[in-house]
Amino acid sequence: MRLAILAHEKFPERAKTGLGVLRYSDDEVVALLDRDNPGREVNDFVADVQNAPIVSSMGDLDLERIDTLLIGISPIGGAFDETWREDVRTALEAGCDLIAGLHYFLNDDEEFAALADEHGCDIWDVRKPHDELTVAEGVARDLDAEIILTVGTDCSVGKMTTTMELARDASEAGYDVAVIPTGQTGIMIEGWGNPVDRVVSDFTAGAVEEMLVEKADDYDYLFVEGQGSIVHPAYSGVTCGILHGSMPDSLVLCHRANQEVIHSYESYSMPPMQTYVDLYEGLAEPVHPTTVRAGALNTAGLEEEVAREAIEDYGEALGPDVPVTDVIREGTDDLLEVLL
Amino acid sequence: MRLAILAHEKFPERAKTGLGVLRYSDDEVVALLDRDNPGREVNDFVADVQNAPIVSSMGDLDLERIDTLLIGISPIGGAFDETWREDVRTALEAGCDLIAGLHYFLNDDEEFAALADEHGCDIWDVRKPHDELTVAEGVARDLDAEIILTVGTDCSVGKMTTTMELARDASEAGYDVAVIPTGQTGIMIEGWGNPVDRVVSDFTAGAVEEMLVEKADDYDYLFVEGQGSIVHPAYSGVTCGILHGSMPDSLVLCHRANQEVIHSYESYSMPPMQTYVDLYEGLAEPVHPTTVRAGALNTAGLEEEVAREAIEDYGEALGPDVPVTDVIREGTDDLLEVLL
Repeated sequence: MRLAILAHEKFPERAKTGLGVLRYSDDEVVALLDRDNPGREVNDFVADVQNAPIVSSMGDLDLERIDTLLIGISPIGGAFDETWREDVRTALEAGCDLIAGLHYFLNDDEEFAALADEHGCDIWDVRKPHDELTVAEGVARDLDAEIILTVGTDCSVGKMTTTMELARDASEAGYDVAVIPTGQTGIMIEGWGNPVDRVVSDFTAGAVEEMLVEKADDYDYLFVEGQGSIVHPAYSGVTCGILHGSMPDSLVLCHRANQEVIHSYESYSMPPMQTYVDLYEGLAEPVHPTTVRAGALNTAGLEEEVAREAIEDYGEALGPDVPVTDVIREGTDDLLEVLL
Repeated sequence: MRLAILAHEKFPERAKTGLGVLRYSDDEVVALLDRDNPGREVNDFVADVQNAPIVSSMGDLDLERIDTLLIGISPIGGAFDETWREDVRTALEAGCDLIAGLHYFLNDDEEFAALADEHGCDIWDVRKPHDELTVAEGVARDLDAEIILTVGTDCSVGKMTTTMELARDASEAGYDVAVIPTGQTGIMIEGWGNPVDRVVSDFTAGAVEEMLVEKADDYDYLFVEGQGSIVHPAYSGVTCGILHGSMPDSLVLCHRANQEVIHSYESYSMPPMQTYVDLYEGLAEPVHPTTVRAGALNTAGLEEEVAREAIEDYGEALGPDVPVTDVIREGTDDLLEVLL
């Protein structure tokens, strides 16, 4: 695919989806739409990702050069921002496909549906679960593949990034590896997957299991993208369903350096790391025993020395047998050594 | 309401929904439809519930005497059985409303929708979540009501029954009590509620929280109907979401006597009772600390002496400070003493 990514007014910090695609997708990003920064380019803001020019609108692009418009923003609530309509309309009129991870399904938008029909475009609402999902059968532990799940101390601490980095590096090292994407960004990057946080709650474990069953025969290692946190006041159900549905052989505990309260739920303190370890392992034990075998600390934005100190502290919290790193800053070698 | 309950070929054991309504609903059950047992009556099969004559079909009833047909069966998969169509058609043509808890929504059935429209009938698909559900805000712990949640060692061990018995007896003892129904049978009995196992997985905790917020100002005690089990290979996500969404002050651990493996997942052994206690309490602790304060053992079908022994064993497993009983066999006094 040759993509344009829409990220108006939110790039880079609040365009997590677009940034993930820039970082991990094999598809070419032809341009990024951000009306706040026309004339600049992606690498002016984020160094270590695919570069692309930034333009104000679809109208500023040579529409022959792109075939897909991807909505790279996931606003809280997942609504469609009407200021994006003109860009989406322009894309469809030029025959471009659409990819979006909003709660508001673009397929259900009358204008977009009509335009897509007229111009032969596909609209992929990544967050719309397929209709055949059902309850888990409890078979993941019997699959012929090593299953590695990222778990976290909160949402947005780096589970998707850690999964992608581990899988990419393991693959480059010659291992037979697949990512099991469970959230919108992972699904966009991989081009398939179940949006586990949007499925019927009874099917949470089943939605993960279905993907593992599909891939287990073809790969030796399956890296499952985790979601949320097991003590999150709102999202723990999804986390728990993924843990039991995937029946992982290894856990990688992801955390953001110096974070002490749950994001957006600041009256909830994070418990000690050992509590997270005990809960993830204790909860898995009666279904399929597993252990936290590695730790991934997100030190984004910290000075080198401060980051190093935070990584050391995290290592101490997880104990001497559990290697710990920031996978972006220091790579994945130490973690892959124990995981593969 | 004056109800007819459809329970063809499944009454009583496999018509859990119908049985729950017969046991706990304030509405009058005029007749039960079971083509296997016409001419008998409900109390021939189950002693301690509302009695009603059993007939073969809606055609055998004086349709003036009923105003609602309730589907009292929840088959695995939740499909509509086409052998029920004639009864549903007859009911709608007579102007009766419909209540159903199937995954197949009767509102989406073209014939039923048209008949309901023509004859002015309401169709209530209990398992269809309302559209305004959203993520939990994490406010249940701040509500001005004592919250009591039933948790279990598996599905179908008696959480709904225990919730209903405790709430009814507490209410009769003069306490200001409401039930927070989370499953189809509870919702049918109470006439409202969110089907927590059918909501978007991200909204699991939010669907419970919404109900608690709605009732907390008007009642002193809220008895939340739990679902599933925290180590169920398929349903633990719902269990976990309810635990964190409801932030209970007390837990009642429900178990079926002599059960040792997970129903329909027989290769999964139940862990020791202490593991269940540790997991429920440990998982709740970082969000809102709570303890297992009582145990409810389901000894249905056991001889008196065997049942007594099982209750004693269960009491030993939960420890000296945790009263234990079979609420159907022995009443709720011992449990309410510690819970209220």
